[in-house]
Amino acid sequence: MAWVELITVLALLQFIYLGVLVGQARERYGIKAPATTGNEIFERYFRVQMNTLEQLVVLLPAMWMATAFVAPPWAALLGLIYLIGRFVYLRAYVAEPSKRSAGFGITALPILVLLLIDLVGAVIRLIRG
Amino acid sequence: MAWVELITVLALLQFIYLGVLVGQARERYGIKAPATTGNEIFERYFRVQMNTLEQLVVLLPAMWMATAFVAPPWAALLGLIYLIGRFVYLRAYVAEPSKRSAGFGITALPILVLLLIDLVGAVIRLIRG
Amino acid sequence: MAWVELITVLALLQFIYLGVLVGQARERYGIKAPATTGNEIFERYFRVQMNTLEQLVVLLPAMWMATAFVAPPWAALLGLIYLIGRFVYLRAYVAEPSKRSAGFGITALPILVLLLIDLVGAVIRLIRG
Repeated sequence: MAWVELITVLALLQFIYLGVLVGQARERYGIKAPATTGNEIFERYFRVQMNTLEQLVVLLPAMWMATAFVAPPWAALLGLIYLIGRFVYLRAYVAEPSKRSAGFGITALPILVLLLIDLVGAVIRLIRG
Repeated sequence: MAWVELITVLALLQFIYLGVLVGQARERYGIKAPATTGNEIFERYFRVQMNTLEQLVVLLPAMWMATAFVAPPWAALLGLIYLIGRFVYLRAYVAEPSKRSAGFGITALPILVLLLIDLVGAVIRLIRG
Repeated sequence: MAWVELITVLALLQFIYLGVLVGQARERYGIKAPATTGNEIFERYFRVQMNTLEQLVVLLPAMWMATAFVAPPWAALLGLIYLIGRFVYLRAYVAEPSKRSAGFGITALPILVLLLIDLVGAVIRLIRG
């Protein structure tokens, strides 16, 4: 389970890092709290953080549930792909929001695979009683 | 535990589906990223997704913790009510935001029941040592 | 584990309470859904809720994973500091957003300590095989 724990910590640290980037952009472009709009670049960092929040909330339960159905290192490997994809997403989104699809796909795909593992695993358990 | 796993997967898939609806509304109403405002209907879909994120983050730990105190299928049943309520909420909010209270209530109630189970369960454990 | 369960329930209830405050501010300042802007005070409550969502999503897995590496009551104690810090953050942010740093720090610090425990614990497990 240690690989899954490690990927979880790294995914949480990555999310915190994205929050730090938002804070720095807030400073740099003079967006005073509670505002979250007013500068296009700030808004890109902010949306990267929010979109990552949306995916993180799905990734973590999907990955941990999958450890009940496949060897934990496989679940962690899918989590690792998510981690890498999020950095691709960050770089692409900040440079040009319309180019964010590739990074989004790299993070969405392992999440969907994990959910498929969970769905099949849970249904098989229910059928077998 | 398989029912709780199944409801968890379905709740995560439902949340992803709400994200897909936001993406489609973004396309349909020409709201270019990183903007999240500019069209009332888009904003309704966006708020449904965000509000579901807020509730999902409470539902999942509340439901899983409850399996330590009640039979897991009962926890899953409360999760199922949440699932149905979120669809009611989606339909109502998109049609007319001021009518969103009923759907909100159907999803908030099972969450509060789960938290009550968790609270009582944890306190009893602490008292008994 | 009962202390960790109790802190989890309290953190979830605190988050729900922040949502109730947002709903009340929505009413008081006449911000009609789906809008989330238009009144500075409303936006402060809204941002407190959203920022708490961001931290809650990190706190819960960080705290639960830490129970594998330190005695659960210690993990719960760090969670308790988070809980108190969030109330400090709420009070400060609503009064004056630029004064929110102290409350933010009181909640960010225990989260970082928990993540450090998790990281060291997971790495030790991997090294030992």
